[in-house]
Amino acid sequence: MKRFAVLISVVLFMFQASVSADIHYKILDKVNSPKDIKEFNIKQLDNLAKDIRAGIINKTNLLGGHVGSDLGIVEVTIAMHYVFDSPIDKFVFDTSHQTYPHKMITGRKAAFTDPLNNKQITGFSNFNESAHDFFIMGHTSTSISLAEGMAKARDLKGEKYNVIALIGDGSLSGGEALEGLNNAVELNSNFIIIVNDNEMCIAENHGGLYKNLQLLRDSNGTAENNMFKALGYDYYYVSDGHNLDNLISTFKKVKDTNKPTVVHIHTIKGKGYLPAMQDKESYHWKLAGYVNTKPQITDVSNKTETYTSLTVDYILNHSKQDRRIVAISPATPMACGLFPPQRQELASQYVDVGIAEQHAVGFSAGAAKNGAKPILMVCSSFIQRAYDQLSQDLAINNSPAVILVVSYGINGGDVTHNGVFDIPLISNIPNIVYMAPTNKEEYLAVLDWAIKQDKHPVAIRVPQGIVVSKGIKDSTDYSKINKYKIEANGSEIAIIAEGDFFELGQRVKEKIKEKLGVEATLINPIYLTGLDYELLESLKENHNIVITLENGVLDGGFGEKISRFYSNSNMKVLNYGAFKEFTDRVPQEELFKKYHLTPDLILEDIVETNELYDKPSQAEHSEAQADKSETQPHKE
Amino acid sequence: MKRFAVLISVVLFMFQASVSADIHYKILDKVNSPKDIKEFNIKQLDNLAKDIRAGIINKTNLLGGHVGSDLGIVEVTIAMHYVFDSPIDKFVFDTSHQTYPHKMITGRKAAFTDPLNNKQITGFSNFNESAHDFFIMGHTSTSISLAEGMAKARDLKGEKYNVIALIGDGSLSGGEALEGLNNAVELNSNFIIIVNDNEMCIAENHGGLYKNLQLLRDSNGTAENNMFKALGYDYYYVSDGHNLDNLISTFKKVKDTNKPTVVHIHTIKGKGYLPAMQDKESYHWKLAGYVNTKPQITDVSNKTETYTSLTVDYILNHSKQDRRIVAISPATPMACGLFPPQRQELASQYVDVGIAEQHAVGFSAGAAKNGAKPILMVCSSFIQRAYDQLSQDLAINNSPAVILVVSYGINGGDVTHNGVFDIPLISNIPNIVYMAPTNKEEYLAVLDWAIKQDKHPVAIRVPQGIVVSKGIKDSTDYSKINKYKIEANGSEIAIIAEGDFFELGQRVKEKIKEKLGVEATLINPIYLTGLDYELLESLKENHNIVITLENGVLDGGFGEKISRFYSNSNMKVLNYGAFKEFTDRVPQEELFKKYHLTPDLILEDIVETNELYDKPSQAEHSEAQADKSETQPHKE
Repeated sequence: MKRFAVLISVVLFMFQASVSADIHYKILDKVNSPKDIKEFNIKQLDNLAKDIRAGIINKTNLLGGHVGSDLGIVEVTIAMHYVFDSPIDKFVFDTSHQTYPHKMITGRKAAFTDPLNNKQITGFSNFNESAHDFFIMGHTSTSISLAEGMAKARDLKGEKYNVIALIGDGSLSGGEALEGLNNAVELNSNFIIIVNDNEMCIAENHGGLYKNLQLLRDSNGTAENNMFKALGYDYYYVSDGHNLDNLISTFKKVKDTNKPTVVHIHTIKGKGYLPAMQDKESYHWKLAGYVNTKPQITDVSNKTETYTSLTVDYILNHSKQDRRIVAISPATPMACGLFPPQRQELASQYVDVGIAEQHAVGFSAGAAKNGAKPILMVCSSFIQRAYDQLSQDLAINNSPAVILVVSYGINGGDVTHNGVFDIPLISNIPNIVYMAPTNKEEYLAVLDWAIKQDKHPVAIRVPQGIVVSKGIKDSTDYSKINKYKIEANGSEIAIIAEGDFFELGQRVKEKIKEKLGVEATLINPIYLTGLDYELLESLKENHNIVITLENGVLDGGFGEKISRFYSNSNMKVLNYGAFKEFTDRVPQEELFKKYHLTPDLILEDIVETNELYDKPSQAEHSEAQADKSETQPHKE
Repeated sequence: MKRFAVLISVVLFMFQASVSADIHYKILDKVNSPKDIKEFNIKQLDNLAKDIRAGIINKTNLLGGHVGSDLGIVEVTIAMHYVFDSPIDKFVFDTSHQTYPHKMITGRKAAFTDPLNNKQITGFSNFNESAHDFFIMGHTSTSISLAEGMAKARDLKGEKYNVIALIGDGSLSGGEALEGLNNAVELNSNFIIIVNDNEMCIAENHGGLYKNLQLLRDSNGTAENNMFKALGYDYYYVSDGHNLDNLISTFKKVKDTNKPTVVHIHTIKGKGYLPAMQDKESYHWKLAGYVNTKPQITDVSNKTETYTSLTVDYILNHSKQDRRIVAISPATPMACGLFPPQRQELASQYVDVGIAEQHAVGFSAGAAKNGAKPILMVCSSFIQRAYDQLSQDLAINNSPAVILVVSYGINGGDVTHNGVFDIPLISNIPNIVYMAPTNKEEYLAVLDWAIKQDKHPVAIRVPQGIVVSKGIKDSTDYSKINKYKIEANGSEIAIIAEGDFFELGQRVKEKIKEKLGVEATLINPIYLTGLDYELLESLKENHNIVITLENGVLDGGFGEKISRFYSNSNMKVLNYGAFKEFTDRVPQEELFKKYHLTPDLILEDIVETNELYDKPSQAEHSEAQADKSETQPHKE
């Protein structure tokens, strides 16, 4: 969830950091694996905690990263490694954005202490890094299910060891976590769930289960009404999750238990670093350079316009005029520009459902069906968590909710946060209209139409990057579904460039003009969910190549629909987009090159295609094609 | 979930039904809308309950349908309509397979009492049928989210009425329901959840929450440890859900409440019909003609071989030899042939996670990663509920779990159970290998390979219909991913026919031979997730048309990948499959005709394509194409 931080520009008081650039680690130097801490005394373990905190701040200040959750979990992690025997005992950290202390104890400390090694590890759990990690993770709420599967495998194989899922209170609200919590108790064998209760999600928590956690904290774990006990778990409470004595003695009690057990631990998010303790939400994840920076005062009246600010301004303005509007976030409001002041301004017209994307979609579908105007704001990678709700709750019911998809596209992000799958996911569901506007006026017109109409579920890819303004109001009638826009009329070559990639389409057009002297047609399809049959048919008259550009995976995407349309015609189609692959922190530029998403590389492909079909005989075609097919990027 | 019943052939004792064909309805005749029952006394309401039960049995015996859940909810529904004012007050029935009593009270009784009207209504909630229904539903666990959305819309609009979600205990284990249960309490306004606790899912319940429901039943609702109260709900318990006095007085207490409230009602699934009360699992849904039929004794030793029986036999045999094998079902074991005797035989090597598809996938991913051999068996329509788990838990981790997909393809089913979306859903996720075997030996070889390998997550479309046996063991090396099989070598036309549709491919080949005198090439791709580049390239040498046949939606499906492959070549591609649409009980034959999925219609398209490209000039091409494109089915 780190990309939220990119958007952060809130008013906050920054405290002078207590960490110096030249850090002296007292005891971390002696720790190369968990066995090295087994003989430490409490004093030494406490010093280790201090060193680990220094390492967390050092690394995140250099490269950015998760701050608050890692600072809060230091002692719990030390105690886990002190009592249990990783990797024989298996730790599964939920989301795994809080594994920095675990990484420092399990042989990866150099990444935190040595600037030369900072980029050697990922920000999440990763079995390629260490035998102490079992999964590559990054989405929340999966740990209980994954760990229960491991425990089941252990039992089937007749093995004996502890399997431990560590999950934050914020992640508990997700459907998979709740399904897992309900099911894991049926194991009837060793299974330990550590609930790291820091009273925070990314933003504040929402939902009834947090009332129960509060009751348990307030009663020091003794309240009779206990959701974990209700489900059948043995239950232990640790009131001070930074007290190593308490943690160690509790873990010793549950070690080798033969029953599913919950250890509920109260921790403080950001513990040990005052700014992070005082502004928990913005210190969830920080960009590099946050230590020792001056307080940043954002002048709201003079801010730079972004598509995010346009979205928030639209919602704030229109919600006052129309009480039916309600902005909905599944625990990621900052990713969409909804900071505490905006949330307060929206009041009851803002709902954070917590980490609960399925409910967010179902709730939106229900609200729209009963006449409200829900606007669900969600990251590409997280809308994946609600496919069936998009299909069943929303699409089958033609419920006119609006979904704004952000943080999508080909980027250099973590493998668990690739944003290239939302077009295949959403656009192949009947009834949903998925739109990709290309500039400010178009976006605002599409948003306005989507909210005011009541016939279709509409999802919109919110434009990204620098705001492009045409300077004139867009008065297109968007109720004409699947009506593409011809932005420039030409011949021979037509470029269909969606959303984000419209600007690339313009550059490709220029390159074609420059190198081939051809005025290509440029089309903005706007709609990703259907074809403009009439327009596509008309292209056959004086075009022989159609190029599609989409900021997403090719497989199941937009371009393939164009290829299918022309599949029994003479039109040649070149589809450009991402290959079907997970990419892990590969620089965007490198991916663009690999996928031929540059005007120069696309031109090369056009020239090759022209050569194939303009000149050689049919027999020569086949040979030339056979030679080239393996290297042609749009074939992967 | 009705199609499970198709597979039912278990040993059970059938009781002589007490219902005669000539039913005398005592009081139902007077009920045309909910207002008609408002003045009834308890005696009359009890008689209405009897009439409704007779109607349920009458209709389900004539046409098949949900039996047990509807019989169990009769009094609750009557009391709801007696106390609340539908449709001003909004009822949202979870899954809505238990809305028969509601339908009978809200003007749709003729469908239950009059054979001529039996087919006039759907088996689920449907706003096209009645103003008393608000959603089209059919998947479980959605009611709380949808209803909370309605309640939020009500509050935003400043309206006043009751919003009521009715959900069965079985559906409570689903992620969306749990997310909704956690969130809805935040409404702080009128919201009533009726928990219909009949102690059953489709099969038996699994999970910790059922321990709490049992504690609450055992304590007559007074136990201090109460999951609903823990979440912050006001809580009421009705111990006898068939006592109208109790139900009415409780509903009167909660009517117009201004707090989120749970009414937990204990009912008996199948109430009033002894066979359904005694065999709750198989009476969840029944085929027509179950009343007065003789006891059916299935001779297991002499059963007809089906792909389901082949699957179950494989699992039963291999699980004995390999203790790591574990069969997993998300509450639908019967759909995969796992009846109580098989489940007992598998013992700890069988896990029913309840309605919890996300957990089922995460659990499978975890188990495989720790060396077990999980086989998750799931219906096409329900794997939709776990897209993100397929991507994040399974695919990113390359966890070698096996998923068997059943009940897929183009069929005449309900709109909420269309089985055409699993290819786009699964096949566009990187790393997963999705396979579609075409006959017995191939299926068993694919299944065996999938379970024994440890490199890939493998999903398999279990073949459907009459078992096709080649009579010789399949010794293909399936580790050669994406290696298609040429089943017949020909020229000019190549047919790529996946899984289920391979037989259609054979018939198309024969038709082409018969009518055009051409020996077409026939290809069984086996792999739905990738292309055999070498083979596809080689087809260019002596083919000019490639036909793809898939038993699923075209958009985002297999055929589009073939079209993309050939998109800049001279090969003409004709893709056949379902259009992107939800279909509601449209006969399969009608759909096949619409989609041109018959040899005759495909031949017509081939002839047209040949005419377009063999004879006319380029200019004539365009015109001819323009004329035809709108009617060509593979363009929709």
